[in-house]
Amino acid sequence: MKNNLTQPAKLTSQKVKLRKAVRSDKKSILKLVKELAEFEKLTFLDDKAGSRLMKDAFSKDPPFRTLVAEADKKVIGYAFYFFTYSSFFAKKTLYLEDIYISEKYRNLGIGKKYFIELLKIARKNKCGRMEWVVLDWNENAIKFYEKLGANELKEWKTFRKIINYD
Amino acid sequence: MKNNLTQPAKLTSQKVKLRKAVRSDKKSILKLVKELAEFEKLTFLDDKAGSRLMKDAFSKDPPFRTLVAEADKKVIGYAFYFFTYSSFFAKKTLYLEDIYISEKYRNLGIGKKYFIELLKIARKNKCGRMEWVVLDWNENAIKFYEKLGANELKEWKTFRKIINYD
Repeated sequence: MKNNLTQPAKLTSQKVKLRKAVRSDKKSILKLVKELAEFEKLTFLDDKAGSRLMKDAFSKDPPFRTLVAEADKKVIGYAFYFFTYSSFFAKKTLYLEDIYISEKYRNLGIGKKYFIELLKIARKNKCGRMEWVVLDWNENAIKFYEKLGANELKEWKTFRKIINYD
Repeated sequence: MKNNLTQPAKLTSQKVKLRKAVRSDKKSILKLVKELAEFEKLTFLDDKAGSRLMKDAFSKDPPFRTLVAEADKKVIGYAFYFFTYSSFFAKKTLYLEDIYISEKYRNLGIGKKYFIELLKIARKNKCGRMEWVVLDWNENAIKFYEKLGANELKEWKTFRKIINYD
């Protein structure tokens, strides 16, 4: 028990603040984006792509919005989202492009806090749905999403065509 | 062979014009959207959703863009698309929400013409990718997409949460 004396007070999600990103968060956000790419075993392109990402994030008409999580005066999580549209619903959809929480801040309820906030933003924008994708081996995330009351769209296949500039 | 004399000249995709939708196309577009919903065995909400869809399509800052196909002086196809964003690419994506060609105008190359035009728009907007979804039983469409050089994203699962307004 003696170690408890030197341990910091346990962080709870109540002490975590979700807020809009500001320009001075750029470095912290990029670090987390790279962490997510490593976690997902995907390649985050290069420094050029990183600069472009942050330029886009803080441009006049940004193609996505950034919500950061702040704890211990540090940015420890981020979410990128934007609005898409469902023609059959005739309503906007809040699409969550990325959500990431730094490893030592997991299992504290920050993910749930994020989803509550994002659903609030979706309602404010009269969205009919919120959507996102997850890698099929990420079982923890899938369990978490199912607990939130989300469903997998099993009957739809997603197709992608890379745009060639040669 | 005698029937040939009274048959109209065979329509080719060259005679089909793809153009931005205008307000006077509203009725024709809605009719095609309903046809697509029937084809996909999905419910297109109701007249209220239809009005909302057309109101959004021709609003000041539309959440999607509409490209119609015109042949025989009629609107015989439509596509709704918008731009999403890939954080790891740090580039926009052209997302194709709907594409539909009226039954009697199929297999004339109009679908291919649409994709060539959409890829042109994607390039103009510096997109890294073009994406869309397809129902798993729609084998003809899947074959067509594979011929275009598109790939299914098999490792990603899409999750959806319906927004509750009660």
